[in-house]
Amino acid sequence: MLKSALAQAHSNIALIKYWGKRQESLKLPQNGSISLTLDALWTRTRVSFDENLETDQLWLNGERASALQTLKVHKFLNLIRQTYGLSLAAQIQTENNFPTGAGLASSASGFAALALAATSAAGLHLSQEELSRLARQGSGSACRSIYGGFVEWQRGESELGQDSFAVPLDEKPDWPLLMAVLVLNDSPKALSSGDGMAQTVATSPLYPAWLASIESDLAQMRAAIQAKDFTALGSLMEHNALKMHATALAARPSVIYWQPVTLALIARVEKIRASGLECYLTIDAGPNLKVLMQEKDWPQFQAQLRDLPEIKQVIPARPGPAAFLCEPF
Amino acid sequence: MLKSALAQAHSNIALIKYWGKRQESLKLPQNGSISLTLDALWTRTRVSFDENLETDQLWLNGERASALQTLKVHKFLNLIRQTYGLSLAAQIQTENNFPTGAGLASSASGFAALALAATSAAGLHLSQEELSRLARQGSGSACRSIYGGFVEWQRGESELGQDSFAVPLDEKPDWPLLMAVLVLNDSPKALSSGDGMAQTVATSPLYPAWLASIESDLAQMRAAIQAKDFTALGSLMEHNALKMHATALAARPSVIYWQPVTLALIARVEKIRASGLECYLTIDAGPNLKVLMQEKDWPQFQAQLRDLPEIKQVIPARPGPAAFLCEPF
Repeated sequence: MLKSALAQAHSNIALIKYWGKRQESLKLPQNGSISLTLDALWTRTRVSFDENLETDQLWLNGERASALQTLKVHKFLNLIRQTYGLSLAAQIQTENNFPTGAGLASSASGFAALALAATSAAGLHLSQEELSRLARQGSGSACRSIYGGFVEWQRGESELGQDSFAVPLDEKPDWPLLMAVLVLNDSPKALSSGDGMAQTVATSPLYPAWLASIESDLAQMRAAIQAKDFTALGSLMEHNALKMHATALAARPSVIYWQPVTLALIARVEKIRASGLECYLTIDAGPNLKVLMQEKDWPQFQAQLRDLPEIKQVIPARPGPAAFLCEPF
Repeated sequence: MLKSALAQAHSNIALIKYWGKRQESLKLPQNGSISLTLDALWTRTRVSFDENLETDQLWLNGERASALQTLKVHKFLNLIRQTYGLSLAAQIQTENNFPTGAGLASSASGFAALALAATSAAGLHLSQEELSRLARQGSGSACRSIYGGFVEWQRGESELGQDSFAVPLDEKPDWPLLMAVLVLNDSPKALSSGDGMAQTVATSPLYPAWLASIESDLAQMRAAIQAKDFTALGSLMEHNALKMHATALAARPSVIYWQPVTLALIARVEKIRASGLECYLTIDAGPNLKVLMQEKDWPQFQAQLRDLPEIKQVIPARPGPAAFLCEPF
């Protein structure tokens, strides 16, 4: 039995957002979502089951992780241990090649890599569907990072979540797209995505209208991806993201992830677009913008951001691969 | 027949917002609204009908007004002329004691003062209800500035708008409230309230949910005013305003009236409130905040804003009076 495995999974950014759980512990979503997996942002995780360990140990970017981070990973490994009848504790070494905790979906790539590494180290050969269902229980959006390219997370109907997993829409799109991740010099967010979602579902009078609009958004997004219609994809992505933040803004108390610079950058993207460079933004549960454009426009777009000192880093990303093992299995 | 009259009307700030017309030319609203008339912000307008004039002439703060401003006033006077069988052109001198066009409801006080001055100059003695219905057709929210204190604009059902006018809820509230108007050094808004409303009604998938929530907001606000429950009034006012901006944010394209400093000030108000000074914000179709507090907290609140150079001016306002004639009639 193999006791150690190293896996890599890539972050994904939702084009149609997941916002709100219908069941907390199984992380079952209120609505389906569609994402793009990114090549430039990834997590690499080694899981080593070790009979000499008394409890799980987590190392994050070379340092011992916090108690809270360790607990989340411990619970996830317990789920695997219980499901597959294992008993050993593990050492987990995980590394992100991008800023952690800056609202860049590190939990998506993190739990996808962990699911693949842990099950492989345990000698299991799970299908992508099984891995996606498992990763979902670590962090909802992690189920999408099992696949590359354009991915849809199907909401499902089952109370046990058997039908709530991701499926590929176009794993290797032949489409020169570029998503610029604008990393701001921001302070950590005061409200986690999970808490912000829960507060929105419980108190926003606009939430039912958000939900009612999603099936149509999903259908239009699938069509835009299939037709490679950049304008349709981009404008719908931007609308869907702003609609999600609008729904949260109407919660009571209000859920606001934006910082002043977020608004400045929204205005800037609108200005760049009005000048003829077609680009569209999306924002997750944090202050950072991601801007989608066509590869040909990237040099000119970059030049337009030079006067903005608030942007700490701009990471250009293209469609990325499915989660994979870094060593022969 | 009296040919000249001078009237004063006060700006009002909605606690439950009016957002969206169900009929454009008569300015019939989609929803009812509740406001507070403010003492500190007013418009004073003299209307002089003059048989020597060929057309209406508008002077704003001592200068000839723009063609667009003059046209709006001309159309409103035409409405009065047609309704009451008048034919003379008028000279209109109007003056605001506060920044015009900075999103401080100058059209509300403006059309209320104009309705009272013009009908008085024409020798008419309209009731407050008639004046309110008339002022509404100049600028919707002007119908509320006919009354002082807390005012409700009843949506009405009639296609001709006969039942769409304001009524007083508490004209002279015995309640030491203070609304601080924070004037930012802002650029003019790119989208008028009217255009922003129309775009929201036509394209925001959240708009029906906003509308569906208003009857309950109105009932709770009436109850809070009657009970003089500051916490209930303030927190509902803030929630309602953010919900309105949320509804607009989800329009397609998005309607955003906020500037970066708006978000900074929202965070500041939350921080001041968390520190124990109870205050609540509201925002109209512009970047400026209005903050409601109890009179006793005003000195301390003022001190909390000293480090914010973006705020050009802070105007403290208390509940204000009904529109009135400045000379004996």
